[in-house]
Amino acid sequence: MYYFTNLIGTFILDNKLKVIDSLSFKNVEEYSQRENKEKQLIKKHQAGSLPENKLPQVLSLFKNQKYYSEFFLKNLQLTKQSIKESVNEDNLIIQTIANINELDRISNTLVKRLREWYSLYFPELAESVQSHEKFVELVSTKTRSQLLKDLHLEVAMGADLADEHLEEMHLLAKEVSSLYELRNKHEDYLKKIMEKYCPNLNELAGTTIGAKLIELGGSLKHLAMLPASTIQLLGAEKALFRHIKTGSKSPKYGVIINHPLIQDAKKDEKGKASRMLADKLSLCARLDFFKGEFKAKEYRKELEEKLR
Amino acid sequence: MYYFTNLIGTFILDNKLKVIDSLSFKNVEEYSQRENKEKQLIKKHQAGSLPENKLPQVLSLFKNQKYYSEFFLKNLQLTKQSIKESVNEDNLIIQTIANINELDRISNTLVKRLREWYSLYFPELAESVQSHEKFVELVSTKTRSQLLKDLHLEVAMGADLADEHLEEMHLLAKEVSSLYELRNKHEDYLKKIMEKYCPNLNELAGTTIGAKLIELGGSLKHLAMLPASTIQLLGAEKALFRHIKTGSKSPKYGVIINHPLIQDAKKDEKGKASRMLADKLSLCARLDFFKGEFKAKEYRKELEEKLR
Repeated sequence: MYYFTNLIGTFILDNKLKVIDSLSFKNVEEYSQRENKEKQLIKKHQAGSLPENKLPQVLSLFKNQKYYSEFFLKNLQLTKQSIKESVNEDNLIIQTIANINELDRISNTLVKRLREWYSLYFPELAESVQSHEKFVELVSTKTRSQLLKDLHLEVAMGADLADEHLEEMHLLAKEVSSLYELRNKHEDYLKKIMEKYCPNLNELAGTTIGAKLIELGGSLKHLAMLPASTIQLLGAEKALFRHIKTGSKSPKYGVIINHPLIQDAKKDEKGKASRMLADKLSLCARLDFFKGEFKAKEYRKELEEKLR
Repeated sequence: MYYFTNLIGTFILDNKLKVIDSLSFKNVEEYSQRENKEKQLIKKHQAGSLPENKLPQVLSLFKNQKYYSEFFLKNLQLTKQSIKESVNEDNLIIQTIANINELDRISNTLVKRLREWYSLYFPELAESVQSHEKFVELVSTKTRSQLLKDLHLEVAMGADLADEHLEEMHLLAKEVSSLYELRNKHEDYLKKIMEKYCPNLNELAGTTIGAKLIELGGSLKHLAMLPASTIQLLGAEKALFRHIKTGSKSPKYGVIINHPLIQDAKKDEKGKASRMLADKLSLCARLDFFKGEFKAKEYRKELEEKLR
């Protein structure tokens, strides 16, 4: 007497491999919670596990129409279930950071448009306020006469436009403000999930750089498997391939270029700094993936001491 | 006795071309409103206009330091003034339509992102709702369970995400809604200024196509000067140059391709329809630029009759 289990049920077979008893699963949940019932059935028949050489014969039992369509359905169910369960923090992080990048590009484009448009009315403002965020804030909250006073400017070349025309520019400025706000909310959210999911990476890389590394690596798991030298260059693929193809200078850093430790390093130490940072980031990714301890603060101190 | 006028003032010269009397202008306004005072001065001295052959000698009078810096300032003033006055409906229309195009591109990008992101939670929705606007509306106003009911769908593969994760997607959906709203406000505004500025073009081309034609032409004036065959192809420059360079098919229409009269024409009549439409659009632009009568409705009827 043997027993054999698949997605459809647990089957008891006699020595001629004919089914003499069975336990069938209605759905994938029953399949995954079969343990007790299965044990009872096996005990009842005192069945042993199927020897490997008899497997082909048993499998051919399930080739008939009835079993096949049941198999198909159950398999589909199982696949759907695993897809469902495969959605994890990686996906959420990747979607969020991708949208942050998008929003950055978009608000840049719109501010440039606003600068051009508003310059029909007040060209001196676009010239004297360099920061995009400041510019948007001023346009959306102050009138021209207030701005003239505050900034000690004189309008010489702007046209006197009626309110109906200015209204559209104000609406655009408000839209850009709200895009900035959304971007900041995304970042807060990202920080919250990363503090739980990859505390080391989040601490040492910072939220946005950490998220970009996960995005470029594909997942925290992949990132943890990458050598430090690859992490150092993630985001610099173009320059790297140009280097390989044309022999131009090899890139020293990818997205980590914006990290404060690299930004603050002396010009001739940036390469070294990025190598050292990438080493530690790689350790962080591994600690996070294998649920290790929180060491990022130590690492940061170490790097700061070595680099200053 | 002669008189001579420039930006600085009106000067009375004796026969040896020495200045014996003058009227000076404090600013550009005084220069442009000089008529009466100038007449009095000329009458007083019974001065005649300067013969051309004496002009070089008189001009050299103004080369000294004092006159020169005054000239420079007045000229600057005059230039600023003309820049100020040069801002007109063309500029406003061009900025607005450019921003509408930008907003269309942007909301498209963001909806694609939202579809991907929301599909972690509810993949069946992105698949069953094709319209971007509808999709955004549904995500931002309804919960998954409401949607499941309304659309008779079943969630099979979406992950069960907590509210904190869904929140970011809802915020993105709301942002896109507000971009759509801004775009519509821009279009209403555009319609309002075009109804006044170029009623014929606005009527026959429609607001957005009309505005795009002005944008591509550079101004209503330029558009009015263009031959109809050029108007027909505005916006198809790439295809036109490809045709010239490689001998590929010549394009039949530029931005007017989206016009209902072209859209509704039979496939083998689209070329003819676009030629006829461009002819009338060219007339409209001319009527509008030279402040002619309102004939666009007649033109439209004529076209509709010929094309159906």
